Amino acid sequence: MSSRPGPLDHFYTVILAGGRGTRFWPQSRARRPKQFLNVLGQESLLQQTLARLRPIAPPQRTWILTNQSLRKQVLRQLPDVPPRQVIAEPVQRNTAPAIALAAHLLQQQDPDAVMGVFPSDHVIGKPATFHRILRRGAKAALGGHLVVLGIRPKWPETGYGYIEFPAGTSARSATPQPVVRFREKPRRAAARRYLDAGNFYWNSGMFLWQARTILREIERFLPATADALSQLRPLNSRQFSASLRRHYAACDNISIDYGVLERADKMAGLPCPDFGWNDVGSWEAVYQLLPKDKRRNVLRSPVQLLSADGNYVDSDKLVALVGVQDLIVVDTPDALLIARRQDSQKVADLVKEFEVGGLTGLL
Amino acid sequence: MSSRPGPLDHFYTVILAGGRGTRFWPQSRARRPKQFLNVLGQESLLQQTLARLRPIAPPQRTWILTNQSLRKQVLRQLPDVPPRQVIAEPVQRNTAPAIALAAHLLQQQDPDAVMGVFPSDHVIGKPATFHRILRRGAKAALGGHLVVLGIRPKWPETGYGYIEFPAGTSARSATPQPVVRFREKPRRAAARRYLDAGNFYWNSGMFLWQARTILREIERFLPATADALSQLRPLNSRQFSASLRRHYAACDNISIDYGVLERADKMAGLPCPDFGWNDVGSWEAVYQLLPKDKRRNVLRSPVQLLSADGNYVDSDKLVALVGVQDLIVVDTPDALLIARRQDSQKVADLVKEFEVGGLTGLL
Repeated sequence: MSSRPGPLDHFYTVILAGGRGTRFWPQSRARRPKQFLNVLGQESLLQQTLARLRPIAPPQRTWILTNQSLRKQVLRQLPDVPPRQVIAEPVQRNTAPAIALAAHLLQQQDPDAVMGVFPSDHVIGKPATFHRILRRGAKAALGGHLVVLGIRPKWPETGYGYIEFPAGTSARSATPQPVVRFREKPRRAAARRYLDAGNFYWNSGMFLWQARTILREIERFLPATADALSQLRPLNSRQFSASLRRHYAACDNISIDYGVLERADKMAGLPCPDFGWNDVGSWEAVYQLLPKDKRRNVLRSPVQLLSADGNYVDSDKLVALVGVQDLIVVDTPDALLIARRQDSQKVADLVKEFEVGGLTGLL
Repeated sequence: MSSRPGPLDHFYTVILAGGRGTRFWPQSRARRPKQFLNVLGQESLLQQTLARLRPIAPPQRTWILTNQSLRKQVLRQLPDVPPRQVIAEPVQRNTAPAIALAAHLLQQQDPDAVMGVFPSDHVIGKPATFHRILRRGAKAALGGHLVVLGIRPKWPETGYGYIEFPAGTSARSATPQPVVRFREKPRRAAARRYLDAGNFYWNSGMFLWQARTILREIERFLPATADALSQLRPLNSRQFSASLRRHYAACDNISIDYGVLERADKMAGLPCPDFGWNDVGSWEAVYQLLPKDKRRNVLRSPVQLLSADGNYVDSDKLVALVGVQDLIVVDTPDALLIARRQDSQKVADLVKEFEVGGLTGLL
């Protein structure tokens, strides 16, 4: 019951929910990307993200960045978030402008705003640990740092960027560390070196900082974006949407990592203890996250099995499997996917082929 | 334009179309068994059977034996066959009573009737050869023999019965031979011996005989059946159907092979030259019979493939295959089958499990 100011007093969560997500085809589509799917449990990944962040910041202090075609779905799935805080980017411009826009609007509301930036489509298995990490990160953010959460690698992943910390860095301390360097998605051999070295962490895409700090960096490194934002009318004015449509396209089309973080000098990385993070990057990840039957099957449909092991099955109708192993089977009203589990990353390639082939009805 | 009597002058075809067929689940169901499916080409196997036999006997001399629940479908698929020649068995009683009933009705129409008995769900790749064989068989039938067509085995099949001919029998001669013995479905080792011996032929389930000859044998070996038939009112009387319903259940529930042929002494086997016979006993057989693409896939759906080889795919909607080999994929509105091709015989076991499990909606 202390009235001493805490690190979360001016804390806002910003959830990035504009992603397309092709790796969950045929359930994910351009108009129904991964964050809206109930691939795990009864709620969508977006709803789970909001619920997880509630103890840190209530929906009244939650902002969602999304795009025009997805905004209605966000409002439907997250009725507790004030609709004016669900912002639709008029055009796709990567993460730097989206985060800059959120920072700009928060700064107008609360000059002392501290913001946490979160993807909308990850899962976190240990929320209590996560909350402790965020409190620690928020403190560092209040000290003027740009804080990025680092995740201790469990395998030599080539699909993520890495944060290089000083040699000897340990997640035990869980205190912010200087970032030696950001490393782009490595090749296999480099990923193996990073894993062995111990001071390389996965870049989680989760960030904490004061709105004013990130805005200063954006002014410095992305002046076109800063200039576009300066043209916006206030959020509560009638002209806000029109001004956003007019100026947002002039923003730099660049990620926050490339556009700002790799060049900023106020970076602090937080080498996190394990908080059960998973970016649910493929059907294989969904399979791994869900409970299995005795024959290692994950069955989300009525099924009849005959010598079938290690399969993931999701359909509205009965699926009979005879003698098949380690398959992903996802059945929807207009498309059916059957993939080897080990090939589930390739589903994104499939969707690219639909694009190339002009099969836009399937996107 | 000769008026000399030929062996086909009094020839009638009797097509057995009462089979249930569980091996083509989920396309085949109790009310839509295999013979009604277009698993090969544009026509059903039943329609292909009628078309193939047309040069031997026109639809006016074709009789169909089926059951109550399938009769309407037969009439719909075979509009050229006179409806009174499409006979529905009131209860299921195996092949001996069905054939006996057909013989009884034909005998009433034409005391010199010769009948050919044919399954409704096989394919024959070389119809000209087949027609030559039937003409030869019909001649032997006119001589008072019970003629069974034997098919030279191509592999040591354990799912068929065999006809043992005298040692040294060759299909080249294509003349009727005495049957040494019928052999039931053998075990693997015996099937291998039969194949190597050269004088064992598959029992095709196709028979030719005079109606009067088979009726005499039925009187001898299946008196209950003969007695039941003797109670029937004439086909063109109003009471025929009622009398059939009243007496048919008293017939022996036995196959013509066990009930008559294995005991008769007028048997003649016709060791046939290859006429491209296939009993289409599984999805694997359908796969083998249809043309393939460069990666050995049989695709009867819109599909998108990524490293997929040797698959059979049948669906109304788009199917995407990623990294999968040698699968049977059959999608219907209420059920989806995914089976290894080499396990496609086991689909019948699956259907048995539905029965045991009371999942009658899927039968």
